[in-house]
Amino acid sequence: MPSRKSAPGNFFEDFRIGQVLRHATPRTLTGGDAALYLALTGGRFALSSADTFARKAGLARSPADALLAFHVVFGKTVPDISLNAVANLGYAEGRFLLPVYPRDTLTAVSEVIGLKENSNGETGVVYVRTRGFNQNGAEVITYVRWVMVRKRDKASPAPEAVVPKLATSVAAGDLVVPEGLNFAGFDPVLSGSQHFFEDYEVGEAIDHVDGMTVEEAEHQMATRLYQNTARVHFNQHVEGKGRFGRRLIYGGHVISLARALSFNGLGNVDPIVAINGGRHVNPLFAGDTVFAWSEVLEKAELANRRDVGALRIRLVATKNLPCADFPGRDAKAAMPAEVILDFDYWALAPRRS
Amino acid sequence: MPSRKSAPGNFFEDFRIGQVLRHATPRTLTGGDAALYLALTGGRFALSSADTFARKAGLARSPADALLAFHVVFGKTVPDISLNAVANLGYAEGRFLLPVYPRDTLTAVSEVIGLKENSNGETGVVYVRTRGFNQNGAEVITYVRWVMVRKRDKASPAPEAVVPKLATSVAAGDLVVPEGLNFAGFDPVLSGSQHFFEDYEVGEAIDHVDGMTVEEAEHQMATRLYQNTARVHFNQHVEGKGRFGRRLIYGGHVISLARALSFNGLGNVDPIVAINGGRHVNPLFAGDTVFAWSEVLEKAELANRRDVGALRIRLVATKNLPCADFPGRDAKAAMPAEVILDFDYWALAPRRS
Amino acid sequence: MPSRKSAPGNFFEDFRIGQVLRHATPRTLTGGDAALYLALTGGRFALSSADTFARKAGLARSPADALLAFHVVFGKTVPDISLNAVANLGYAEGRFLLPVYPRDTLTAVSEVIGLKENSNGETGVVYVRTRGFNQNGAEVITYVRWVMVRKRDKASPAPEAVVPKLATSVAAGDLVVPEGLNFAGFDPVLSGSQHFFEDYEVGEAIDHVDGMTVEEAEHQMATRLYQNTARVHFNQHVEGKGRFGRRLIYGGHVISLARALSFNGLGNVDPIVAINGGRHVNPLFAGDTVFAWSEVLEKAELANRRDVGALRIRLVATKNLPCADFPGRDAKAAMPAEVILDFDYWALAPRRS
Repeated sequence: MPSRKSAPGNFFEDFRIGQVLRHATPRTLTGGDAALYLALTGGRFALSSADTFARKAGLARSPADALLAFHVVFGKTVPDISLNAVANLGYAEGRFLLPVYPRDTLTAVSEVIGLKENSNGETGVVYVRTRGFNQNGAEVITYVRWVMVRKRDKASPAPEAVVPKLATSVAAGDLVVPEGLNFAGFDPVLSGSQHFFEDYEVGEAIDHVDGMTVEEAEHQMATRLYQNTARVHFNQHVEGKGRFGRRLIYGGHVISLARALSFNGLGNVDPIVAINGGRHVNPLFAGDTVFAWSEVLEKAELANRRDVGALRIRLVATKNLPCADFPGRDAKAAMPAEVILDFDYWALAPRRS
Repeated sequence: MPSRKSAPGNFFEDFRIGQVLRHATPRTLTGGDAALYLALTGGRFALSSADTFARKAGLARSPADALLAFHVVFGKTVPDISLNAVANLGYAEGRFLLPVYPRDTLTAVSEVIGLKENSNGETGVVYVRTRGFNQNGAEVITYVRWVMVRKRDKASPAPEAVVPKLATSVAAGDLVVPEGLNFAGFDPVLSGSQHFFEDYEVGEAIDHVDGMTVEEAEHQMATRLYQNTARVHFNQHVEGKGRFGRRLIYGGHVISLARALSFNGLGNVDPIVAINGGRHVNPLFAGDTVFAWSEVLEKAELANRRDVGALRIRLVATKNLPCADFPGRDAKAAMPAEVILDFDYWALAPRRS
Repeated sequence: MPSRKSAPGNFFEDFRIGQVLRHATPRTLTGGDAALYLALTGGRFALSSADTFARKAGLARSPADALLAFHVVFGKTVPDISLNAVANLGYAEGRFLLPVYPRDTLTAVSEVIGLKENSNGETGVVYVRTRGFNQNGAEVITYVRWVMVRKRDKASPAPEAVVPKLATSVAAGDLVVPEGLNFAGFDPVLSGSQHFFEDYEVGEAIDHVDGMTVEEAEHQMATRLYQNTARVHFNQHVEGKGRFGRRLIYGGHVISLARALSFNGLGNVDPIVAINGGRHVNPLFAGDTVFAWSEVLEKAELANRRDVGALRIRLVATKNLPCADFPGRDAKAAMPAEVILDFDYWALAPRRS
């Protein structure tokens, strides 16, 4: 008597516009998660490294890195949204609304806001708005992502196509400075960078120089830490026979590695407060070395704030290709095959007093 | 002047019936251990993931996964019991008596309850009952294991054979519901499974579908986390010349991986409250992919409890063989070479109110 | 418009005698760091394993292993001191002044105390005294290290050579017993070793027997945990074309592995209170197996202490060579190529009451 209790995940036919999915597995973050995140990515941003630095900046203590919180929320959505996904297509309208502290518990809820079957009749694109909450029910993160999901049955009728209108980027006026944050007494020696908001110029491109080689054990540990169950990351027995012959590295780990590398040039540009967009241009595999470069897309002063401004950054990551020549920068040229990530976010930076 | 201060471990001749071994290295568990356990195994059971879920279920906060506590207690016994072991043969009469919370400190004591020399005169079987205690001296875990241990000297006389009579399984009446636990308000959306105690039938078999490939760094980190010093897991210089030419993965890591995979089908069947038996059928090596399936062996209502029942589960793990056909299920057929674990435990499950 | 915001690190010409470098990235240690340190190195010393053991010994709770604190402080100095280093040449006059507890925050400051250009005109040796502080501004660690650093320009004039006079070893009278520590009630069963201060003799050599094979993921995680950014540890794309064709394992990870192995023979010889010297004799690479042996160099009673004494230990580590014959012991013979570490430290040991 075989049972049907294993979850098959949702297929394209299972989604409806307006459908609300309350995701499983609430998760309490601790200093253990912060230490692992650091050991797996190599981050050095001072705010998520030290209670003392965070307190001097007005916070209760050192908060979780914004991307750690993002990955944990994202991971919860996988069993419901993307277990049968072919590809994670994009992100938009991501905003970080409240800091996440050790012992906070995260939960996640998604709403289906778009559906469009592909012309091949085998897959469709699902758009969801996901919101992450803490133990007090306060919203800490919100973002939209869209993903290509398999149909269970090619013969199923296509739903009416609904493609949500998404902002190209989060408006500066919608950025939320973490509750209590004040960079008035910012110490650029302790933070590890002398560059303030005023020192960055729109159009400036920064090579982050360093490279980080990724091992199977590392990306698997990171992805499990987020309780992200997407099968392509873990099962060599199956993936070995698949399209790449390899386990695929979770795209979120690529974002975190590139972001950690970007400390070398953007050491004071933290925390991330919005995700404008992102594209996993090519896959990353264990043994590859990740490099990164950034471009300043926009600068924004924030209402009533003299201590802090916002920088909109394009973060590009490559594999096995150093970034002194800013690969992928020329929008008219073809994207080099070594480019793996094209990510667009807002982060805060201290202003000179 | 070479010294003899390195511990050689005990040999078969060193054990006596009734001998009590107080094991070394008390160990305080923290959120760091919980995060690592999760990152190394991929667990998703809600109780050990979130303080909020644990509190709603009547506990003080999120407890350590039962198997994490088990491995830490087990690890302490290795230097005294199994440093010169050839094989870990079995477990019985394991019971979890109290939850283990972050900042609890575990210690362990074993008593020798059986001894039987093998006919080859080179090894013997040692049976021990091990008990784990917290910092208040309260017993949190008890179990029996038996292990084949080398003799120091083949010429040593055999002791009188004593083979303890061990229960095939823990009686349902002896199961201990963790202090304070109440599943009356159990939320099957947050837990990630809609299946309650009532939904499982004796004889039902569940394919857990997913596979997890294991890396050397992962099993070494897990085994060191438990301060388990068995040499076969760590020393490629020696193992490379040995029987398998490889480092052997700690059998407890296999149990934890299979258990984590079993979330997909047994998402509400947690926590584990007893270990009835277990056999490491074949060795696992790095690069192998672990799959698992389960069978419901028994169902038990618990005295004076309407909120919770107990399921006795047989958990079978394989390497490099998906489990849709339930390999090893037919007791009359030979056990397939891909089967690595045959484990028998009791866990709790919420009842519909 | 490429920018120059990525840090190039200091070259030999950038250092001046008396120069003080306040290093970046304050770092709050937690139970997460302790769990990772244990999982990555395999330590079993009771003091840093259990709050109960530490409290019985007079401490507030289980402190961070001395070497974990050392690596974190060391890591901070890398971006300023050794980003352009060719080799880490030595350590001296290291002392541990205060225990580091979970939630303590470490910062570091270095002073340049020596400079000597090499005759090839391409590199020079920089000597720094580094001090680590906690969140109260109290000094917790101090040590000297010297490192060979590249010149930016071979044509730069050599500075006047200043070579500091460094002690061969820390004087016993300068050793600091951790605040509050009292070993009067030391329990040698819980600690895992029956050997007290009185049982060790000067000249005694101990083979630590066990071997530990190192994986790329492990040393990378350890080194990132310390926020040590030295490039040779992480970037296979570049190192693959370099001198060794491999990523080099951080020498501090070798010290920690050898120290963890030394538990088997030195189980009560903890905590480390001073570093007298150390030399990374040969490089270690992933896949190698580390072995270790120790020699007791000196024994010292401590003023007004009947509970505790100090042992000066030489710790030698090898790769792929067991240490039953104490390789490298004969000072007149050539150092075997398998020797990777020659380290000299003071640690405390309980005295029999």
